[in-house]
Amino acid sequence: MENFIFNSPTRFIFGADEHKRTGKYLAQCGAKKVLVLYGGGSVLRSGRLQEIVDSLDAAGVDFLLLGGVQPNPGSSFVYQTIEAARPEQVDFLLAVGGGSVIDTAKAVAAGLLYDGDFLDFYRGKPVEKALPVGVVLTIPAAGSEGSPNTVITDEENKIKKGTKSDCLRPRFAILNPELTFTLPKYQSACGICDIMAHILERYFSKTPDNAVTDRMCEAVLLAVKDVAMRVIIDSEDYQAQAALMWAGMLAHNNICGVGREQDWASHALAHQLSALFDSAHGAALAVVFPAWMRYCVDEDVELFARLAERVWQVPASDDKRQMALAGIDRYQEFLKGLGLPSRLEHLDVPEEAIPQLVAQLKAACGDTVGNFKKLSMADAEAIYRGCR
Amino acid sequence: MENFIFNSPTRFIFGADEHKRTGKYLAQCGAKKVLVLYGGGSVLRSGRLQEIVDSLDAAGVDFLLLGGVQPNPGSSFVYQTIEAARPEQVDFLLAVGGGSVIDTAKAVAAGLLYDGDFLDFYRGKPVEKALPVGVVLTIPAAGSEGSPNTVITDEENKIKKGTKSDCLRPRFAILNPELTFTLPKYQSACGICDIMAHILERYFSKTPDNAVTDRMCEAVLLAVKDVAMRVIIDSEDYQAQAALMWAGMLAHNNICGVGREQDWASHALAHQLSALFDSAHGAALAVVFPAWMRYCVDEDVELFARLAERVWQVPASDDKRQMALAGIDRYQEFLKGLGLPSRLEHLDVPEEAIPQLVAQLKAACGDTVGNFKKLSMADAEAIYRGCR
Repeated sequence: MENFIFNSPTRFIFGADEHKRTGKYLAQCGAKKVLVLYGGGSVLRSGRLQEIVDSLDAAGVDFLLLGGVQPNPGSSFVYQTIEAARPEQVDFLLAVGGGSVIDTAKAVAAGLLYDGDFLDFYRGKPVEKALPVGVVLTIPAAGSEGSPNTVITDEENKIKKGTKSDCLRPRFAILNPELTFTLPKYQSACGICDIMAHILERYFSKTPDNAVTDRMCEAVLLAVKDVAMRVIIDSEDYQAQAALMWAGMLAHNNICGVGREQDWASHALAHQLSALFDSAHGAALAVVFPAWMRYCVDEDVELFARLAERVWQVPASDDKRQMALAGIDRYQEFLKGLGLPSRLEHLDVPEEAIPQLVAQLKAACGDTVGNFKKLSMADAEAIYRGCR
Repeated sequence: MENFIFNSPTRFIFGADEHKRTGKYLAQCGAKKVLVLYGGGSVLRSGRLQEIVDSLDAAGVDFLLLGGVQPNPGSSFVYQTIEAARPEQVDFLLAVGGGSVIDTAKAVAAGLLYDGDFLDFYRGKPVEKALPVGVVLTIPAAGSEGSPNTVITDEENKIKKGTKSDCLRPRFAILNPELTFTLPKYQSACGICDIMAHILERYFSKTPDNAVTDRMCEAVLLAVKDVAMRVIIDSEDYQAQAALMWAGMLAHNNICGVGREQDWASHALAHQLSALFDSAHGAALAVVFPAWMRYCVDEDVELFARLAERVWQVPASDDKRQMALAGIDRYQEFLKGLGLPSRLEHLDVPEEAIPQLVAQLKAACGDTVGNFKKLSMADAEAIYRGCR
């Protein structure tokens, strides 16, 4: 366990009907002119956006509405939004959606207080100030509702890049599981994979002696595993959706990752699939993460074996390596059972694209990626080739 | 899983040497005149208090020093402190110690902004404002460093009473495991029992469908169980103390208890032992909690059996009741193994005192106590009699 600072000041408002009080929560934060961002039409069609907007009206909070945020959100939309919002003297952003909308809101929130190119923040410049962001979550997956992180695709260079800053943690996040009832099964499955991946990126660590966070990571994985199939079978299972929604926050506000080095190679590898082939983030992770595990298993067989036993119920045995591999198999079978892909070809990514993926990865991350095992670009290529 | 609001804005600064930067963190909060509260002489003798005070000097933060907070902290000390601090225009409190010091600081923080009797807050009046509190933690136990709670003994009426308010959550808490190295074994054991009790009070719930918080509770219990004996054997085992210190915060900032009804009967029963016989809080819980469990086991045998299997490694069997009872036995053996008492007589509480304990309990809580099983005073008496 290493030294750390942990500060998660977001106010989480969890439960049925809470989105109808969004205006009240904005008013409590002193919001005067809110830019409301959302994605596609589902939140419009369902009438949820209208309920939120009505609550802003009722609370006397002025606002602008802007839809059209896309999955794997891009820089051009952020530029346009900053340009549109600047003359309006917006003082608060409200993201109604999942990770793409929230990450876009965070980019706009930082960009509006900066004279230069907002992408500077995604190229290493620290974010020191940003307008406050509020969230009404509709997709349990990215964890951006409780995290300091944001990921945007630099569309000119086709590179998906992230940044983080505590000033990007949302002021409040409204989590109403009912808002997830209309999610397609495949999108829910992608979210489940992403939530688990956020835990696994933290779990695979060379830091010794993590008694508390090891157990916390395993707890969230077990809870997600317990409810995942319920969500796929019945998207209106309130309690299962509630568990998943709260697990998605816990997986990424870093309460499960404090004091330990984290990996994040699988996310970097998956990001290139999204940047070049527009793969859904969770689907890309479902393809990449098991391949990364098989490639890295000998870095710490004990840790893989422990995960296999505690989370995937692989029986304990003296052959730790066999336990480890059995755990990876069960994890991949679990993902397949949710309807997720396991091979590059399932993402319509041809094997011939691998050199280009590696070149993109190098452009985004440099000569090595990850911490649990510092992957060279040759390692990365081998992992892409192992995605089967 | 019920609706909830969760907001834990405390900034946790965790690691070796961090107490030497206390002045910097106070200055970042804008503190001008700080009342520094501490307990006995250990923090003086070890030189830690001087290191903290030096950091305030170095940061140009003015302060008053006030020692002498006692375990099971009482109202008279709070009255005196409020009276002493009021003319000094204190704008920030710094608690250097464990739960007793932090709880006293919270009482003073609320009392200084109130013209009436501060005990009003412990008799039901909501705390709506308080001066900010910072913490340098020296005892992992009470979890007050991350919680909205405070418990004070009304010395006139010999009743230990609590209150809570989000405005009492500390602004920051400095957690340096090295500061726990000088704790006597018995005090560490009491802390371990208290941390586990904070989880168990949340775990025993009639709320259905708590997939995430069930697993989180089990995770913290497992982590504490994993490191407890290491702390007792070697109080300078940094990693074990670090795990315990962080677990103590997680056990009581309510991240493990959101969305579920909680019990808290065992705490109420234990408080009367402390109020009348000045029993150490953790020791009183070690005596009361197993007795409470045996009395309440039939309220939900499945839940007790699950705890027994997942945390105490009781083998699964068809006889859930036997599993449940075996788990309670293992929990009590674990506490005894740490050197903690198991019977009222170990606390020097004679059986003849039970009617008086029940009368005090009734004065503090009314006709019933707890939620998992709503205990009548006859139930409470039976539990006290079962403390063996």
